[in-house]
Amino acid sequence: MKIKRIAHLGIAVKDLDAPKKFYAENLGLKLKGEEVVETQKVKVSFIQVGESKLELLLPTSADSAVAKFLENKGEGFHHLALEVDDIHAAVEELKAAGVRLIDETPREGAHGALVAFLHPKATFGLLVELCQYPD
Amino acid sequence: MKIKRIAHLGIAVKDLDAPKKFYAENLGLKLKGEEVVETQKVKVSFIQVGESKLELLLPTSADSAVAKFLENKGEGFHHLALEVDDIHAAVEELKAAGVRLIDETPREGAHGALVAFLHPKATFGLLVELCQYPD
Repeated sequence: MKIKRIAHLGIAVKDLDAPKKFYAENLGLKLKGEEVVETQKVKVSFIQVGESKLELLLPTSADSAVAKFLENKGEGFHHLALEVDDIHAAVEELKAAGVRLIDETPREGAHGALVAFLHPKATFGLLVELCQYPD
Repeated sequence: MKIKRIAHLGIAVKDLDAPKKFYAENLGLKLKGEEVVETQKVKVSFIQVGESKLELLLPTSADSAVAKFLENKGEGFHHLALEVDDIHAAVEELKAAGVRLIDETPREGAHGALVAFLHPKATFGLLVELCQYPD
């Protein structure tokens, strides 16, 4: 497969305002909008860094996976998203190589992307998402 | 301050060979060499992703900060490094704004870079490093 760039770093937070203010005012980074991803029960706020983004993840419901993550581990790094040009081919390639996946079939994510998460056991403790953006 | 890009993601690992093989063979990413950073008691292995790198961190000693991190949290995300053009000015700017830092003075890191870590309490649970590379 061909990975083009780090699409984003997902970061679990308990509030959006304070981290947005920090990244914008103290680090001088650009805020790039917000979106509610209903399927994941999160409100997402994007911050541009070079060709990549930080993606702040705020749970919108107590039964969101990110709410559970915050309960167990607190705020901080959640996942690394890598952009591929053909996510269906990439997922098939990983399955053929016996790599463990959370999503055996790509599903819809933020920004109209198709996403598939690898299993953290396959990626040495790091939760890795592959994503493909619409043209 | 002006942040140019994600320089790297530091990832704590218990072994370099298996993750290197995974990132190179399964994800098709390019390995970009290794380096021992004596001051941090780590062996570092770089993997290129777009304009950024993954930086696998293997402790070379039981009293390395990364060894302690692995003991407490296991393998996975360790820190996010952001490249700035003038790290001394960036550190002064953060100090003036009252942002908590681990390194109040930039120090030497891998690849001849100057680095300064912010305190994870200032960055919502994320360990963030600023770095400046030699011209």
